[in-house]
Amino acid sequence: MTANTEPQRPGFSDIQAASERIRGRIDHTPVVHDPQLDEALGCAVFLKCENHQTTGAFKLRGASNAVARLRASGDARDVATHSSGNHGAALALAARRDGRGAHVVMPRDSVPAKIEAVRSHAAAVILCEPGQAPREAGLRELVAQGMVAVPPYDDPDIIAGQGTAALELIDFMNEIDILLTPLGGGGLLAGSAIAARGMRPGITLFGAEPAGAADAWESFHSGRRVTEWTPDTIADGLRAVIGVMNFAIIHDLVDDILLTSEQAIVDAMKLIWARLGMAIEPSSAVAIAAMREHPERFEGRRTGVIITGGNVDLEFFPWLREQAD
Amino acid sequence: MTANTEPQRPGFSDIQAASERIRGRIDHTPVVHDPQLDEALGCAVFLKCENHQTTGAFKLRGASNAVARLRASGDARDVATHSSGNHGAALALAARRDGRGAHVVMPRDSVPAKIEAVRSHAAAVILCEPGQAPREAGLRELVAQGMVAVPPYDDPDIIAGQGTAALELIDFMNEIDILLTPLGGGGLLAGSAIAARGMRPGITLFGAEPAGAADAWESFHSGRRVTEWTPDTIADGLRAVIGVMNFAIIHDLVDDILLTSEQAIVDAMKLIWARLGMAIEPSSAVAIAAMREHPERFEGRRTGVIITGGNVDLEFFPWLREQAD
Repeated sequence: MTANTEPQRPGFSDIQAASERIRGRIDHTPVVHDPQLDEALGCAVFLKCENHQTTGAFKLRGASNAVARLRASGDARDVATHSSGNHGAALALAARRDGRGAHVVMPRDSVPAKIEAVRSHAAAVILCEPGQAPREAGLRELVAQGMVAVPPYDDPDIIAGQGTAALELIDFMNEIDILLTPLGGGGLLAGSAIAARGMRPGITLFGAEPAGAADAWESFHSGRRVTEWTPDTIADGLRAVIGVMNFAIIHDLVDDILLTSEQAIVDAMKLIWARLGMAIEPSSAVAIAAMREHPERFEGRRTGVIITGGNVDLEFFPWLREQAD
Repeated sequence: MTANTEPQRPGFSDIQAASERIRGRIDHTPVVHDPQLDEALGCAVFLKCENHQTTGAFKLRGASNAVARLRASGDARDVATHSSGNHGAALALAARRDGRGAHVVMPRDSVPAKIEAVRSHAAAVILCEPGQAPREAGLRELVAQGMVAVPPYDDPDIIAGQGTAALELIDFMNEIDILLTPLGGGGLLAGSAIAARGMRPGITLFGAEPAGAADAWESFHSGRRVTEWTPDTIADGLRAVIGVMNFAIIHDLVDDILLTSEQAIVDAMKLIWARLGMAIEPSSAVAIAAMREHPERFEGRRTGVIITGGNVDLEFFPWLREQAD
């Protein structure tokens, strides 16, 4: 589980095993099809709604898989991680359910609701400066204190767990031509790529990334993993730099990475709210934004999209707040 | 269009024509599939979400069809109807879009938000005592003043329009074994039955009705239409007595009517909120409630359900109100 041991990349059977392992610990989330969204996007779109996942994001899949693997190996230590929010909350819940403590290093500029969510699952929150280096330094310190690290994405058990959402989606709707997911550290996209290639070898796989956090795009097109990037995007879940194992898998299996503007992200949040009454977080909206900014990639092709989470401050939806007053 | 002319029952081609006629005036609404809802209900369930329809209910389909037919026949008179809310709001919007006035007789005990919705589309609201007789008397008076009646359900154009939701659902998901809709006056169920039998002759058709408004159940099983009933149910959209043409169609085409308790209706609202974050009105929840109270009818059979509307006062969802504060 540590960076030094060169862990093996997960295969399709690892995703299947993870799916069995976390059954009952995660939600099998809904799939939504909306004919008018199809019209707006120029193709049939199937949304796998991880915003309805417990903790409000897909991250519970990977965290639950990692904690279950620790338990199976007899490791009962407290867990530690760094996270901008969703992975932290997911790990906190998975750890609490497993009767162990969790400690989460979070950047000071994390969404306040996400910090609260981590604390609500009885985890200890350690605030750090924004940026990759302070997050990793904070985590190293916790490991030095005797905790076991459960990284947010650069880990085979996390990747295998995150891949279970795509497994469920394609199991239900197996004629899709394209699978599209948002891309930050690359846990979801790497896991989804392994799952999708295992089920539909000829599928087209895209990641969607904000132009303001284009480290994965840069890495993908240069063939060399970018290790430093100062993100500038409202998609708070996608500010991390792509992981080592994640990059290797994505470079091998994914067809392309599509960039999106910040305005397109906000517009996509509004579109999904207007059509479906679903509040999705900016990191989720990046995938819909990519479809609108690169329509020629999707035209007439049945597309599965993983809506990654719905943990968004209500400031993004002032009309919702007014409506409910 | 008046009761004296014995209008002809609509056929499958009328539903298809209505679907073409109202294209662009109504929303093609989303279909939601949730694996955990399947588990809770014991079968695969596909929800056709008319709560996402403009005006928040399927009623815009029938009202748009009726108004378009009037326009095509050269009839430009103001329209009038009686309604507990959703049909009134739908007719008000359809009339306004068509540049004509709308007048709606509403029982005093209508949901306040529904009265407001009718007024928001610039229609005149005439309040009356609760019960079928005062509603019909109010409408007769408006017709005497020179308006044309667009009845809420007992009308071939309304029935044909309401049937378009089932048409869309089965067009998208054509392997369903059962189609289930709530049942009040019978416009939706009659239209859905014609649409579904036209597309899948062997399909099983069920209506769901609150035990506290079981006039259609009573009529269906006795073979004689009940004409008076004092409803006692929170499902405000289902308090009307089944219509003449509606009863004839339903008696011919529908397999059975399933009754539900009031507690099951509230529980179903909570279930859909918990699983999907969707606020559905009690009249919609009746269908889900029927599935839970008659599980042997559904076990292992792929079921399409029309979620009829989402116009519900927030008092039903206090936790939603708190969440947004």
